[in-house]
Amino acid sequence: MTSLATAAGGRWIWKACRARGRGRLSCRHGRRWREKCKVAPNPAATHWRAGAERRLDRGGLRKRAARPPRLRLARLTARGEGWQLLKACCRPIVRALVLAPHSRHLPPFSRSCRPRCVPGPMADEEPAAKRRKALARLDSQAFVQSKSVYADTNGVPRSGDPPRVLHLGLTDGEIANRVVVVGHHSRAELLSSFLSPEGSEVFKLASDRGFLAYTGLYNDQRLSIVSIGMGLSMMDFFVREARAIVQGPMAIVRLGTCGCLQEWVKVGCVSVASAGSALVQRNYSHFDAPKAHAGSEPYLISDLCMPDAELTALVASSLQEALGAQKVVEGINITADSFYSSQGRADPAFTDENSVLIEKVLQRYPKAITMEMESFQLFHLARSSLPKGSIKAAAAVVNVANRPTGDVVDGEALRCAERDGGRALLQALSKLKL
Amino acid sequence: MTSLATAAGGRWIWKACRARGRGRLSCRHGRRWREKCKVAPNPAATHWRAGAERRLDRGGLRKRAARPPRLRLARLTARGEGWQLLKACCRPIVRALVLAPHSRHLPPFSRSCRPRCVPGPMADEEPAAKRRKALARLDSQAFVQSKSVYADTNGVPRSGDPPRVLHLGLTDGEIANRVVVVGHHSRAELLSSFLSPEGSEVFKLASDRGFLAYTGLYNDQRLSIVSIGMGLSMMDFFVREARAIVQGPMAIVRLGTCGCLQEWVKVGCVSVASAGSALVQRNYSHFDAPKAHAGSEPYLISDLCMPDAELTALVASSLQEALGAQKVVEGINITADSFYSSQGRADPAFTDENSVLIEKVLQRYPKAITMEMESFQLFHLARSSLPKGSIKAAAAVVNVANRPTGDVVDGEALRCAERDGGRALLQALSKLKL
Repeated sequence: MTSLATAAGGRWIWKACRARGRGRLSCRHGRRWREKCKVAPNPAATHWRAGAERRLDRGGLRKRAARPPRLRLARLTARGEGWQLLKACCRPIVRALVLAPHSRHLPPFSRSCRPRCVPGPMADEEPAAKRRKALARLDSQAFVQSKSVYADTNGVPRSGDPPRVLHLGLTDGEIANRVVVVGHHSRAELLSSFLSPEGSEVFKLASDRGFLAYTGLYNDQRLSIVSIGMGLSMMDFFVREARAIVQGPMAIVRLGTCGCLQEWVKVGCVSVASAGSALVQRNYSHFDAPKAHAGSEPYLISDLCMPDAELTALVASSLQEALGAQKVVEGINITADSFYSSQGRADPAFTDENSVLIEKVLQRYPKAITMEMESFQLFHLARSSLPKGSIKAAAAVVNVANRPTGDVVDGEALRCAERDGGRALLQALSKLKL
Repeated sequence: MTSLATAAGGRWIWKACRARGRGRLSCRHGRRWREKCKVAPNPAATHWRAGAERRLDRGGLRKRAARPPRLRLARLTARGEGWQLLKACCRPIVRALVLAPHSRHLPPFSRSCRPRCVPGPMADEEPAAKRRKALARLDSQAFVQSKSVYADTNGVPRSGDPPRVLHLGLTDGEIANRVVVVGHHSRAELLSSFLSPEGSEVFKLASDRGFLAYTGLYNDQRLSIVSIGMGLSMMDFFVREARAIVQGPMAIVRLGTCGCLQEWVKVGCVSVASAGSALVQRNYSHFDAPKAHAGSEPYLISDLCMPDAELTALVASSLQEALGAQKVVEGINITADSFYSSQGRADPAFTDENSVLIEKVLQRYPKAITMEMESFQLFHLARSSLPKGSIKAAAAVVNVANRPTGDVVDGEALRCAERDGGRALLQALSKLKL
């Protein structure tokens, strides 16, 4: 069982579990703590505190603890079976605890003020305290906080003050017109280290739905890097909600990872989808009602959707400059709606009927070089944007695995491609005239 | 600019930015720090340290600081323009810094040992240090670490030791056969507070791709709670990778949020998809090549896919018990591949042609009550699982918005539904015979 007493920025913040039901936390700085935690004063607290202090006195501990300001909190369990002593070392930044749940014996103070955790059975109230914390976090993050702030149910809803889009958790101006979109949080973090801050530091926001956004300056241009997770829907969330909070034209470049479909493409290369992207989708009806859809294909392969030509050329040339021409390939991308079934991977735990899928894809698009999960959606939404051409899109992906040969990139080459390739994309975006 | 000196679990860990190029971090506990950080010893360090210590002596500060063990680190900027003093209070758990970038004046020590941050221009080397940190994180998290550990490119690939599935980041046994799947990280955290730990604490793992998993015990049954983000693809990742690391039959229940399509369904109610789920997909061809696909529908509506009857009944009865019968509704769920276009939301920034979509959906499924983004995929994959019936699936969603009336749930009711509804699902899963 753990409670925390933390001090941040030189100001005291007391946080502690409260006993649920019968007992309650009591502390000598009770008012301040209660104000911070918005807890009503508890008449029972005085009684419990008095008892705890008597015990402290008996052990001569209170005197020692009273040296400025060492011992502050005394706490009783909910059951009244024993008591817990929570000692917070009052060094400027500190987390220190002494806990002895369900014990009538006072845990000895450590002279060196080291935190001591005396193991004991979990007290009943700990999960409750965790839950309160989690609920408080829900309160601050839940997209619906009150009736008045969540509006436009049938449009692009926002909540809070300032009004934030529901899933990215961002508000107007928090991301830039020029964005690099990635799938890994750590890749976003890596690329954010190339940004310089607009104010005191690079803007960062992690949403409760798994998005992570950074905004700063690169080559004096305002730029954002957003990690969006994976799949068509996550890209849809990103493009639509970003569009709702950005004024003027936008340019979005994806930096992803992919498997490659051609034996001659080396792992560690970066592929640019300059010849467009096609979508492979699982045909759910074929599987769910095989009789009704007899003869239907298990997977549907779409027409090509093209990226923005100018931005794509800029991305390709910038990558060639950064990585060398032999490390950059161009061609058709395939976007699949699953990493497994629609990419022809064999999984004996599911009915997939995908053993000849890759062949079929290559029959239709012999120049397809890469297979991943987001580029088509990005291109499609950019082409569907209004006014026409208001979103420019391009995509580059690091080839991490060669599907025909089974080759896999090694860690060093992957990191180089991510770091230098990512920087090249920032460069390309900063050069683009919007 | 910030460096950190942290000590965790009673053991010292020194972390600090190193000046790039000319200067380097120097510290009196250099060997230990270097071992920890795997940094080669720097011959220049001794020289710089001597200078820094002379200055400290001059101010009489070293003596005061030398009281066991207070001042440890002295550091120079990369430019040699001035120097920075990094003071780490050596209390067992501590983060303390004194920084004075680009200043020749020693920042006064605070008697109370409070951390001081003297504002100054960002030093050049900070982004590089950040980058190193980010790269180190990529090293530990990137799914491809070396050729030898990433295998089965055309199956269900794993990497690392122990071998972890690529996107969830989990390995065998880290999640249970019984899983509650949610979309919010904070909801997962809330529900995890109902679990009791198997060992010293509830298992928790956040993957680099936005998944967050908890495993523990509920009613003496092993149970997991996983936050998966949103959309068909994220559900696909979850079900397939979870299946790969769990032995024996599985039961998965989704606890989501949704908009509801019927005026009579109150917000704050929980809907159980007992009559199945249908999928609404954007017909990309209709938009990308309108001439070639003239007359095609902009959105495709699938047949119904059914959940597991036994688990669904258990979920419904458990919810009724926890929330009261009037707060639980049953019916058909609609899963959409977008929160915006395929759910009939109006967004003037994109061509969507979805103004009559909801009507069409209700024409085909008059009893459809909810619209969200994952349940269909869960049911579909459960039905596609081999051996047949090895995955049982059910779904319950909190109605947060009534689409016809525009009503929105308030924060309190939402939290209650998440907390009590979530607990009811844990209860149902723990009762199921697998």
